[in-house]
Amino acid sequence: MGPNIVVNGVGTVGKRVAHAVKKQGDMNLVGIADVSPSTTLRTVLEEDGPLHGIPLYASVSDKVEVLEEGGFYVEGDLPGFLDTDEVDVVVDCTPSGIDEKNKEMYEEKDVKAIFQGGADASIAPVSFNALANYDEAEDKDFVRVVSCNTTSLSRTLWSLDSNLGVEKAVASLVRRGGDPMQDSRGPINSIVPVTEIPSHHGPDVVEVMPHLDITTLAVKVPTTISHLHMINVDLSKEVSREDVIKIFEETPRVRLFSAEEGYDSTAKIIEKFRDKRLRYDMPEVAVWKETVETEGNRLYWIHQVHQESIIVPENVDAIRSMFGTEEKKESIRKTNENLGIK
Amino acid sequence: MGPNIVVNGVGTVGKRVAHAVKKQGDMNLVGIADVSPSTTLRTVLEEDGPLHGIPLYASVSDKVEVLEEGGFYVEGDLPGFLDTDEVDVVVDCTPSGIDEKNKEMYEEKDVKAIFQGGADASIAPVSFNALANYDEAEDKDFVRVVSCNTTSLSRTLWSLDSNLGVEKAVASLVRRGGDPMQDSRGPINSIVPVTEIPSHHGPDVVEVMPHLDITTLAVKVPTTISHLHMINVDLSKEVSREDVIKIFEETPRVRLFSAEEGYDSTAKIIEKFRDKRLRYDMPEVAVWKETVETEGNRLYWIHQVHQESIIVPENVDAIRSMFGTEEKKESIRKTNENLGIK
Amino acid sequence: MGPNIVVNGVGTVGKRVAHAVKKQGDMNLVGIADVSPSTTLRTVLEEDGPLHGIPLYASVSDKVEVLEEGGFYVEGDLPGFLDTDEVDVVVDCTPSGIDEKNKEMYEEKDVKAIFQGGADASIAPVSFNALANYDEAEDKDFVRVVSCNTTSLSRTLWSLDSNLGVEKAVASLVRRGGDPMQDSRGPINSIVPVTEIPSHHGPDVVEVMPHLDITTLAVKVPTTISHLHMINVDLSKEVSREDVIKIFEETPRVRLFSAEEGYDSTAKIIEKFRDKRLRYDMPEVAVWKETVETEGNRLYWIHQVHQESIIVPENVDAIRSMFGTEEKKESIRKTNENLGIK
Amino acid sequence: MGPNIVVNGVGTVGKRVAHAVKKQGDMNLVGIADVSPSTTLRTVLEEDGPLHGIPLYASVSDKVEVLEEGGFYVEGDLPGFLDTDEVDVVVDCTPSGIDEKNKEMYEEKDVKAIFQGGADASIAPVSFNALANYDEAEDKDFVRVVSCNTTSLSRTLWSLDSNLGVEKAVASLVRRGGDPMQDSRGPINSIVPVTEIPSHHGPDVVEVMPHLDITTLAVKVPTTISHLHMINVDLSKEVSREDVIKIFEETPRVRLFSAEEGYDSTAKIIEKFRDKRLRYDMPEVAVWKETVETEGNRLYWIHQVHQESIIVPENVDAIRSMFGTEEKKESIRKTNENLGIK
Repeated sequence: MGPNIVVNGVGTVGKRVAHAVKKQGDMNLVGIADVSPSTTLRTVLEEDGPLHGIPLYASVSDKVEVLEEGGFYVEGDLPGFLDTDEVDVVVDCTPSGIDEKNKEMYEEKDVKAIFQGGADASIAPVSFNALANYDEAEDKDFVRVVSCNTTSLSRTLWSLDSNLGVEKAVASLVRRGGDPMQDSRGPINSIVPVTEIPSHHGPDVVEVMPHLDITTLAVKVPTTISHLHMINVDLSKEVSREDVIKIFEETPRVRLFSAEEGYDSTAKIIEKFRDKRLRYDMPEVAVWKETVETEGNRLYWIHQVHQESIIVPENVDAIRSMFGTEEKKESIRKTNENLGIK
Repeated sequence: MGPNIVVNGVGTVGKRVAHAVKKQGDMNLVGIADVSPSTTLRTVLEEDGPLHGIPLYASVSDKVEVLEEGGFYVEGDLPGFLDTDEVDVVVDCTPSGIDEKNKEMYEEKDVKAIFQGGADASIAPVSFNALANYDEAEDKDFVRVVSCNTTSLSRTLWSLDSNLGVEKAVASLVRRGGDPMQDSRGPINSIVPVTEIPSHHGPDVVEVMPHLDITTLAVKVPTTISHLHMINVDLSKEVSREDVIKIFEETPRVRLFSAEEGYDSTAKIIEKFRDKRLRYDMPEVAVWKETVETEGNRLYWIHQVHQESIIVPENVDAIRSMFGTEEKKESIRKTNENLGIK
Repeated sequence: MGPNIVVNGVGTVGKRVAHAVKKQGDMNLVGIADVSPSTTLRTVLEEDGPLHGIPLYASVSDKVEVLEEGGFYVEGDLPGFLDTDEVDVVVDCTPSGIDEKNKEMYEEKDVKAIFQGGADASIAPVSFNALANYDEAEDKDFVRVVSCNTTSLSRTLWSLDSNLGVEKAVASLVRRGGDPMQDSRGPINSIVPVTEIPSHHGPDVVEVMPHLDITTLAVKVPTTISHLHMINVDLSKEVSREDVIKIFEETPRVRLFSAEEGYDSTAKIIEKFRDKRLRYDMPEVAVWKETVETEGNRLYWIHQVHQESIIVPENVDAIRSMFGTEEKKESIRKTNENLGIK
Repeated sequence: MGPNIVVNGVGTVGKRVAHAVKKQGDMNLVGIADVSPSTTLRTVLEEDGPLHGIPLYASVSDKVEVLEEGGFYVEGDLPGFLDTDEVDVVVDCTPSGIDEKNKEMYEEKDVKAIFQGGADASIAPVSFNALANYDEAEDKDFVRVVSCNTTSLSRTLWSLDSNLGVEKAVASLVRRGGDPMQDSRGPINSIVPVTEIPSHHGPDVVEVMPHLDITTLAVKVPTTISHLHMINVDLSKEVSREDVIKIFEETPRVRLFSAEEGYDSTAKIIEKFRDKRLRYDMPEVAVWKETVETEGNRLYWIHQVHQESIIVPENVDAIRSMFGTEEKKESIRKTNENLGIK
């Protein structure tokens, strides 16, 4: 019942998407694929791991042996698996560059695929965000789910644009240096700006919302747990901060946190999810309620982006849209329910 | 069935101990107590929180109102609750200083209590570690579970001492600056030594194992996820590294990790538990297998200590020992099983 | 020749201002004052220290003994020194709160004083920036030199406003967690937003330039060496990026750095000054040339602020303005020359 | 008068060694060489830079053009310069691997060379430390100055061994993740152990002091300003901590700091040198006085190592030893005096 899915590339994103797909009732995780016996692969497949029991394939045929030598039971190789009729879509979570090569294989094997935001926008006809352009993925063979920063901006700006009209958006991005496991990455005690303006994030939002006028600036800082954005937007009309708060409250996957209640840093908000969800995943954009402020048509706010998990629900929705199995609203509702997102 | 437990102080340690008690089958979490509407309290009591449904008390009577104003339903105050016969033991996880004052109340109310390692050793007749001195807590009214660093040293050194004899131990501790949520604490870009030698950790291990000869040195560094110890021990006899590895493998709550497999930093090991347990809790001492090295009678190794959770199983075992409900081995087995520790 | 100056409070700012005053030819550093035998005081007064030979006073009379016990030769106390006619102005670099109290003493002793940006704007009739409002300090008894972030914004925005007209400015501030020596301050691995918008920096710029329309947002990150600002400004007219670069090149104490040449982070720029100036002081605002970008009337750029030293030349200029000893241009020129600022 | 020196490779070490050589009176810095127009090269050669006026050569002939395009005046290439009789010794500060290749050139050109500790010990017949084996460099064509960590251990252990006899030394090294400018290096929020025991540092000390029994353990942490070592040593006789403090006080390039006076972290000690020396260079080993502690024959202490500058005076001394221009004591005295080391 529902499409059969393979996740290719079991890293930060792949392990989460596979786990999320497994939790849905209307799609089937029929396999995962990778090329080396990483700690991640080991962990998720162990008896108490979240993907225990899911068949493992080598992403390419000559990696079967490497995985077996690493102590894994390997079902076969991915190209061979795709030759059967058992796979409907591959969610490709391999590193940039590899995904491009994989696309050729997917085309040859005539299987649909979803790529991630690290790939160039040209890899697929649609750069996808569930809220902003769910319907555009319908019937497509290839879809690209945009990156973490772009996803957070697409959600909030789409909602504001739909409700109030957005004339111009400027976002200043404070990005984490690396994910928690990427401990060879810096900076230590430095701030590293992207010296090209706009940074690539602005144009990437435009891939999702072509009519939007947005400019992004970005820096990298010594933290691993989240990005943070400081945003100012010129709206088409004057509104109160209460109006905007209400809009954000009604926007799926946007969640308001109050500094007054104690949620006054990225670490404090993440701590909440340490007590509730594996990997402290927070696919929601976390908006600090007190920072939503207006000056006439001008709106400001600050939000936090959990770079590792924010794109997970979008991958699930992209599958439903591609196969036309649910309408947008219902897909978002289902995904959220299955992932514990209120 | 089994003793009735209240956890007083729902912070980093309290929330974990309460959750762990709740998971055991032979003891009852009848309440938690605190003094302010913190984000932690809010989180654990929410519908999807790990302590949802547990009755909340104000630690002191004049805090009932503060909690109620914070939006909590408060069952009453702790002193009043202790006046009933429904509480057998309080696990006190309040900050240092407060615990001293609370002890007077527990004495007055004639209820047993367990304190944490932040308290002075004089607060209780026993400084407890499950492996090293489980039986000494039996029938005691007050027990102190030693701190995270001391617990890791007690486990490993007790096991070595029992099996091989320890003549002298020296441990160099590299401590985290603060827990993830404590983001007002430093250092940023500095290393802060404890300039007294021994640091307080050595004498604290001696509280648990009075005959042990141990000296500790300590520094603080800019990380939040773990402590790390570099240790050298003079044993009573010459052994091979394989012998020691075998001993560690058979020691409960000590777990070996291989850098060769990719577990080559504190972040890489913690990542494993992000995929398996809430809050990436790792109550096990993580020993890097490759670092277990011998030179005649001299033994070296490096281990990682998850400061937030390592003392959780010891608190559970302390309860069983105090009430004589299980022998040491069986208590450790049960606790481990219920917490998913292999 | 020239006014006689005492610096009260020899910390991060005080030691620098004293050293800078000592380097000028037209004013005299007649003493420094403090309350405790800190490492800073020790260092600067040692034989090879930058303030060796400058008379030391206790800021208050009951601290003479403490300083003497710390091994210092103490000339007397500051109140007594101010009773003589030998001091014309005190540069007060004491912590916020203390400066308020000191002001009463300065009034009583009828001596002029300069305060720092940590004090409330109400402490003095002028909030001072050399470029923006040099003349307003003339003949004043009390002047407040604005803080590091405000100084950087005042310099750049005043220059743009004078040359092109500024309609609206928005600055997103990424602030350092603490100075290098303040190693008890966090955050470690967290980003801490100011959840009030505007942050206090915007209104503080308006103290200097009352007609300016500016909004600031701010966060704190785990670094010690610099702040960084991402700025967007609506100008009164359309300009090219080359025009703005030219304006910045001609603005005193603003310096352009090219990422292409390798100056691609705050650490890389600071390293330059490690090879040239004590304490790697960089009183200049460092603008990344490549980030100066325009979209019609809209201008963007990113700059770096060395929080420890940027206000040093402003303190020197404030002295000249208060005593009317030089015109603005000549004061800035002299100060820069004496501090090695091109 | 004195030998003519070229420094090849103007990075973290090279720029410091060149500057130090320039400050001596009995040797001549006749050139520096590099391969690319780095920010470092630019900075040191600028008008207000510490190496302004020193002739620049391309390390290899095909890099002349690259440097010229970068805006530098290039005197020629290094191989050509070595063909003249004007160079007596090259201090090679190029990256590991390059130095090996350069050695062939130096042999061919029949010029002496000094290599750094990043090179394998086999690159030269002597691994050099001024205190421990000054005389062994005499008349040698090639000398290797050992690395920062090894230098700090050689100084302190040689002094203890000479005075008291060292039976066994164990050092636990807490290393900085990268130098301040190396902001692409991690870790952020992780501790990375060297999982091989001994780490390479122990055997490297043995290259300098062949009879020494030493074992080192090492980890890497998120800081840039210094390494820190926790050390325990078994001495040949029982001594008091006062005895050891006296020995350290009399050991050149070892300096005691008192936490009680406020020098209680690596940042606080470095801050002292920010006020006194360019680049806050601290070629001295900084020992925390309070940490010098004894238990019978056992000695403990903690010291700080400024990784960027500690090897600078050793390079200068190596030159004097190679050319036999001074005895050990006098060379150390001269170097120290010229570098402001007490």
